[in-house]
Amino acid sequence: MCPSREVLQHLTSRWGVLVLVALLLGGTHRFSELRRKIDGVSEKMLAQTLQTLEADGFVRRTAHPVVPPHVEYSLTRMGEEAARQVAELVDWIEGNLPRILTGRETTEA
Amino acid sequence: MCPSREVLQHLTSRWGVLVLVALLLGGTHRFSELRRKIDGVSEKMLAQTLQTLEADGFVRRTAHPVVPPHVEYSLTRMGEEAARQVAELVDWIEGNLPRILTGRETTEA
Repeated sequence: MCPSREVLQHLTSRWGVLVLVALLLGGTHRFSELRRKIDGVSEKMLAQTLQTLEADGFVRRTAHPVVPPHVEYSLTRMGEEAARQVAELVDWIEGNLPRILTGRETTEA
Repeated sequence: MCPSREVLQHLTSRWGVLVLVALLLGGTHRFSELRRKIDGVSEKMLAQTLQTLEADGFVRRTAHPVVPPHVEYSLTRMGEEAARQVAELVDWIEGNLPRILTGRETTEA
């Protein structure tokens, strides 16, 4: 897979979209806060999604050296730009959903 | 899957992106023209992608009643809006790819 295709997949994956939007709208989150906010995500999938977005440079992981460990996630500046683009596309889809679904019924009828 | 999630998947799927961008930049295409333009797509996958985008109301299929059949594909007005959003996101990724890949190397090192 070409690299830009791979990044597109990360940004538009089921959990990727939701993580980006949560961090864009709500700022810094702890893992447990993200997990509560993102309905239905498993611990494993959330950890994997955060790791992928961190490796791409979209998410910053900050571990505070305390006991128990305190880890926070936020968007990098590049992540904010990416999240805004993704959020715009998702907003557009949601705003046009009635039109899209009406078209489908017409096609099926 | 919720409907907006489904539509996002159609718009950002491997072949979906390429079909939308080809029709946005190149206007109306015949099936064979699209197939030549989209590197690596099989006849089956292209047909399926076009059908999905047509059902969502993004692609218009026009069949001219001649022998041999002459079928053309173009974007609807809504499809143009969607394609523009997707193209913007893809352009952003491609423009930022050096930054993204550099970050990855740093992370791995």
